[in-house]
Amino acid sequence: MNNVRVGMIGYKFMGKAHSNAYRALPMFFSNVLRPELKAICGRDARGVEEARERFGWESAETDWRRLVARDDIDLIDISAPSDVHKEIAIAAAASGKHIFCEKPLALSLADSIEMLNAAEKAGVKHMVGFNYRFAPAVQLAKKLITEGRIGQIYHFRGQFLQDWIVDPEFPLVWRLQKEIAGSGSHGDLGAHVIDMARYLIGEFQEVIGMSETFVKERPLSLTTAGLQEQGGRSGLRGPVTVDDATLFLARFAGGTLGSIEATRFAAGHRCTHSFEINGSKGSLKFDFERVNELQVYFTDDADDVQGFRRVLATDSAHAYSDAWWPPGHALGYEHTFTHEVHELMMAIAENRQPCPSFEDGAACQAVLEAVDKSITERRWVAISELR
Amino acid sequence: MNNVRVGMIGYKFMGKAHSNAYRALPMFFSNVLRPELKAICGRDARGVEEARERFGWESAETDWRRLVARDDIDLIDISAPSDVHKEIAIAAAASGKHIFCEKPLALSLADSIEMLNAAEKAGVKHMVGFNYRFAPAVQLAKKLITEGRIGQIYHFRGQFLQDWIVDPEFPLVWRLQKEIAGSGSHGDLGAHVIDMARYLIGEFQEVIGMSETFVKERPLSLTTAGLQEQGGRSGLRGPVTVDDATLFLARFAGGTLGSIEATRFAAGHRCTHSFEINGSKGSLKFDFERVNELQVYFTDDADDVQGFRRVLATDSAHAYSDAWWPPGHALGYEHTFTHEVHELMMAIAENRQPCPSFEDGAACQAVLEAVDKSITERRWVAISELR
Amino acid sequence: MNNVRVGMIGYKFMGKAHSNAYRALPMFFSNVLRPELKAICGRDARGVEEARERFGWESAETDWRRLVARDDIDLIDISAPSDVHKEIAIAAAASGKHIFCEKPLALSLADSIEMLNAAEKAGVKHMVGFNYRFAPAVQLAKKLITEGRIGQIYHFRGQFLQDWIVDPEFPLVWRLQKEIAGSGSHGDLGAHVIDMARYLIGEFQEVIGMSETFVKERPLSLTTAGLQEQGGRSGLRGPVTVDDATLFLARFAGGTLGSIEATRFAAGHRCTHSFEINGSKGSLKFDFERVNELQVYFTDDADDVQGFRRVLATDSAHAYSDAWWPPGHALGYEHTFTHEVHELMMAIAENRQPCPSFEDGAACQAVLEAVDKSITERRWVAISELR
Amino acid sequence: MNNVRVGMIGYKFMGKAHSNAYRALPMFFSNVLRPELKAICGRDARGVEEARERFGWESAETDWRRLVARDDIDLIDISAPSDVHKEIAIAAAASGKHIFCEKPLALSLADSIEMLNAAEKAGVKHMVGFNYRFAPAVQLAKKLITEGRIGQIYHFRGQFLQDWIVDPEFPLVWRLQKEIAGSGSHGDLGAHVIDMARYLIGEFQEVIGMSETFVKERPLSLTTAGLQEQGGRSGLRGPVTVDDATLFLARFAGGTLGSIEATRFAAGHRCTHSFEINGSKGSLKFDFERVNELQVYFTDDADDVQGFRRVLATDSAHAYSDAWWPPGHALGYEHTFTHEVHELMMAIAENRQPCPSFEDGAACQAVLEAVDKSITERRWVAISELR
Repeated sequence: MNNVRVGMIGYKFMGKAHSNAYRALPMFFSNVLRPELKAICGRDARGVEEARERFGWESAETDWRRLVARDDIDLIDISAPSDVHKEIAIAAAASGKHIFCEKPLALSLADSIEMLNAAEKAGVKHMVGFNYRFAPAVQLAKKLITEGRIGQIYHFRGQFLQDWIVDPEFPLVWRLQKEIAGSGSHGDLGAHVIDMARYLIGEFQEVIGMSETFVKERPLSLTTAGLQEQGGRSGLRGPVTVDDATLFLARFAGGTLGSIEATRFAAGHRCTHSFEINGSKGSLKFDFERVNELQVYFTDDADDVQGFRRVLATDSAHAYSDAWWPPGHALGYEHTFTHEVHELMMAIAENRQPCPSFEDGAACQAVLEAVDKSITERRWVAISELR
Repeated sequence: MNNVRVGMIGYKFMGKAHSNAYRALPMFFSNVLRPELKAICGRDARGVEEARERFGWESAETDWRRLVARDDIDLIDISAPSDVHKEIAIAAAASGKHIFCEKPLALSLADSIEMLNAAEKAGVKHMVGFNYRFAPAVQLAKKLITEGRIGQIYHFRGQFLQDWIVDPEFPLVWRLQKEIAGSGSHGDLGAHVIDMARYLIGEFQEVIGMSETFVKERPLSLTTAGLQEQGGRSGLRGPVTVDDATLFLARFAGGTLGSIEATRFAAGHRCTHSFEINGSKGSLKFDFERVNELQVYFTDDADDVQGFRRVLATDSAHAYSDAWWPPGHALGYEHTFTHEVHELMMAIAENRQPCPSFEDGAACQAVLEAVDKSITERRWVAISELR
Repeated sequence: MNNVRVGMIGYKFMGKAHSNAYRALPMFFSNVLRPELKAICGRDARGVEEARERFGWESAETDWRRLVARDDIDLIDISAPSDVHKEIAIAAAASGKHIFCEKPLALSLADSIEMLNAAEKAGVKHMVGFNYRFAPAVQLAKKLITEGRIGQIYHFRGQFLQDWIVDPEFPLVWRLQKEIAGSGSHGDLGAHVIDMARYLIGEFQEVIGMSETFVKERPLSLTTAGLQEQGGRSGLRGPVTVDDATLFLARFAGGTLGSIEATRFAAGHRCTHSFEINGSKGSLKFDFERVNELQVYFTDDADDVQGFRRVLATDSAHAYSDAWWPPGHALGYEHTFTHEVHELMMAIAENRQPCPSFEDGAACQAVLEAVDKSITERRWVAISELR
Repeated sequence: MNNVRVGMIGYKFMGKAHSNAYRALPMFFSNVLRPELKAICGRDARGVEEARERFGWESAETDWRRLVARDDIDLIDISAPSDVHKEIAIAAAASGKHIFCEKPLALSLADSIEMLNAAEKAGVKHMVGFNYRFAPAVQLAKKLITEGRIGQIYHFRGQFLQDWIVDPEFPLVWRLQKEIAGSGSHGDLGAHVIDMARYLIGEFQEVIGMSETFVKERPLSLTTAGLQEQGGRSGLRGPVTVDDATLFLARFAGGTLGSIEATRFAAGHRCTHSFEINGSKGSLKFDFERVNELQVYFTDDADDVQGFRRVLATDSAHAYSDAWWPPGHALGYEHTFTHEVHELMMAIAENRQPCPSFEDGAACQAVLEAVDKSITERRWVAISELR
């Protein structure tokens, strides 16, 4: 079994998460292809070298085109900002490399489809980074639904609630600027909820949304990086050009009713990526802030002991548990990436597409855009209008 | 201080809750007008006599018109089914009696306004039975918002989730028939959420909804009563003519974004009447299944101990606590009615309108109808279109 | 079916709770003997008359001996302070009246046994007020254990945690004075935990305890009443002569290991009367602050969905649910008294002893005293040493 | 800054946890000495080689004496079974190596003290593996106590509840055999609770305990390894020679009352290592099954919003948060080891003893033995009796 030689573009938040996943995989999982941390790439030579050394990559590049051109690389990992995903992915496909691209796949549905087409034409593996699918508690939800133990699904309620910009003096970082981020909480957080819904429930049929920017101007920093401000403030204010919150109603192809919300203005919620599912035979509840737990209810429990069970998804019956620690020993955020990379390596070994693939990335983008359109046009929009 | 002589129409679920409230009030609260249980009224002579005896009323009537005509009655309590509210209320007003009417105030906004006008013209007190306002935890939420301790409100998420008809073999009781019930979960459950939102957040501006009847036909019983089947089944099935679930998005006049859902198909939820409110200074969470608790978050807590507090609203600082038991001793569902009747007696004593009044009943009805209209016309509907 | 004519001594906290229970019983339960609120008794003529009027009693007495002597009384309810229980109970028995006595039954085991013997000799019904048994969630726990669904019981952990005297400036009320209260948190709170353990697990075999008075002196008030201070402070301090906290380990006759704690120094716990039970087939958890809930775990649940279920004990399968409200509608503290009185009325109708009887009161007292002895003598004490 | 060259003995559960910690440290923390994974050691050549390859160690040894003798090693990590800790530690000290030893430090207090003396005499750093101290939520608890924000501590309640041997057909693994494991749940789980208590509250003064082996005989396996059975069953049964559960009461030197329990018979508890602390100014609650959360209560919160706060210890104000992910992104079990190794590297760099050191290991052992003695002699035992 050969190793999979990885070249990764980006070395900040996602770069760190991916590096850790590649390193952890062989230590905890056996019988899986090994990622080889071949080269890490970023524009700032000093920054990328520091990351190379710290995260344990073999070499560093400052030009992604050089990285993509290298013939000792099998897989291009795109952990760079969203606005460069498309160009890199298409180049990687052209040079016959597998592609693992962070979400959102691209800034538009059209771009996403172009990327998907390029990857399919090149015959390479393509994966998009919806890591939350890979929490064992979410895998359990999927299993229970697939096995029919929740029955026909009537309701999906999904939320991604954060609170890091509730303070109006929080500066105008790049994530609040449309030209760089593409979207606000809708594309950043809502995309995760949409993918979760597609994974667990199926395809969206039609949507109608509502959106708001509560704080319209924010202080300008001299420089900003990621979520954090660097340097002092300029004394000026600039306009926030993305949504602070976006909500939408949805009807799924299978008849499920959906209610979805993404906001960065939910004080007290650091990272509440949650869902509840109600079916004819039971219900499921998940909250990422308690990532190891799934709440499960069955209608056919004995009538004097009906109630939501708090299942700690760390038992031997749960996904990935063999790789880690004994029951009850918590996993965390980063493990979702290790599992994601596990799926990627398995797909390469088995010569099949990983799941979620660029198809899922594009499908998610279609829903995001349908919601945007529904907001602009103040009407229900069918997903089919977009593809 | 004179007693307030009450004549009540209806003796089932709500009749029992109201009777208990009238009886409990003077025992737990001092310095408040006393309700005198003068007469209970229902069509079935045997049933009403049994209720009279059991609930402790002085006399019984079988014709509500006779009750309304009696000159030893100060207050008419309408706990009868929704379709007779209007006629009784207008007659009561005409005879100069105060009116306490269960929700929904009427089957339509037009009827609600007629009732309101009649009561105002007659100069009587008028109250509508949105009892959930009177849970001490909800009163605490109101207080925190009013005092500005939650700041500007960005989000309101309200739900009323039940599960008593998830089983498709549950029979076609009257609550599932439009001609009697007027509405399904929307009018029955959603009305409570709408009132809670109006109480805590303010007026709705525009809405868009979605609705579904998941189980379209159900077994016909020989007879049904309330939520329960009586007698055997007929072997036939009939159409469910109300909504099983209704969801809607809302924009409030003050800029808050709302997401509201009412369903009877949420397995595992016996009575989850819940809300979450996110503001610029904090957040609030409430779930009626834990009626004594309010979750409270403040953004200005010291930065190492920020988190939702579970406040048990039974301390001396909380509404109504002096009347009941020491801190930590739970109140239940029925206490919301006792507090409601307390407000009614106080309003009569102070010669002011109780809150919530018929105005609130009509305002709630306007939102319900706006949602219905938005579903039919598949577009955003402003509340102002209806009044 | 005749009514049961009640004469009650005491009109404060317990007097209010009992009055409410007698009044509520016939309204919510049918086919049960009716308590008739014949006479209420207290030393202060004005206070007892006010209570009579407010709680709805027919007449008032200021001398309990006169009350006990009345021939229009069937049942003497002793809601007076603990130090007079014995004398009243023995007199009531002597005059052939049934007795319902608040806990603790008496200030000593010897007194308890005297009371029990007097009641048995007189052939009257005798009940002691361990009301927590009557929460539906506790009844469910009992049912699951009795039916063998939890298996052999290995562990019982019981706590009664309060925090009303954490503040060292809280005054020296009578509950903190040994000559009046007999005991501190041990007798007041620990007694409830001991009764719960006996009810659910069985008899204690041996115990060893530890006790502490954290705040040794407190301000003296001019007057105090119940838990509350009245009048100003005297400027002096007096010694606290009861325990602030008492913990003990226990071995039950059936082999269960027990750990029991009662304290008034658990900041944040208003009224955490809780237990956890671990058996060979499952576990149970209860906390009175969420009185309607029982957490239930079964070892034989499917291996991918094992977890504690939060059962809301308000379903039709649960005790007393028919009498009250639909599923999910909370009951509160006072309902435990209504159910307790229901048991008393049923026992009288069926000519059997109610449960818990004076035997249970005495058995609880034996455990309390064994713990005291173990603390004094710093050794394990068998319950059999005391009887 | 030189690397710290590590030689580790043991490659099973703890070997994996430690390997991961050494590898993760430099990736997530900067400005800290780097552990160099020099050599891994175990008796089974094939097993250790497989571990070497998988966990990323440079070389492998099968004889710990050879490892200890190597001059390219700075630190000996003892992750081997408890019965060999002493001999290895003393040899490591003799050869001038720093020592990081898993808990329990040894099988007896005498051995622990010998190890401590050897390490001190050699002037090497010595650390014992009480990893739970290093959960950020526990660090927060420590900080709040140290800063006086909880006030004087009245109560400590600590539990370690597991359920992996509730099934009486679970085989007689080595952990259930006294000659190998030394102790059952007391030494395995109780030791963690004792260390937590010492860390947060201070020294124990006297204890009295109770112990039980519920299932006295278990099936013998042909072979067993760790917690898991390997190979078939022999058809025979052998005696369980350790405790299934041990509980004890404690008095701390500072006046705190303690109640501590360790059991493997708490169905539904996979890994409930929990504590509650009640002080004069507030309370703290922790449960390892929700490792990122600390419940915090303050008595001086405004009187209408008092309640336990659920603090997610992942904010920038919390220990180690800078190294990991944004707020709300869960850490897991393994992170406690990374933080532990961080402390070890810092101590070496700063030329001070790490905390917890062998002194803490020995102090914990003293409490364990005092409890054992109290059980045997059925009396309170002062810790001072043992040292």
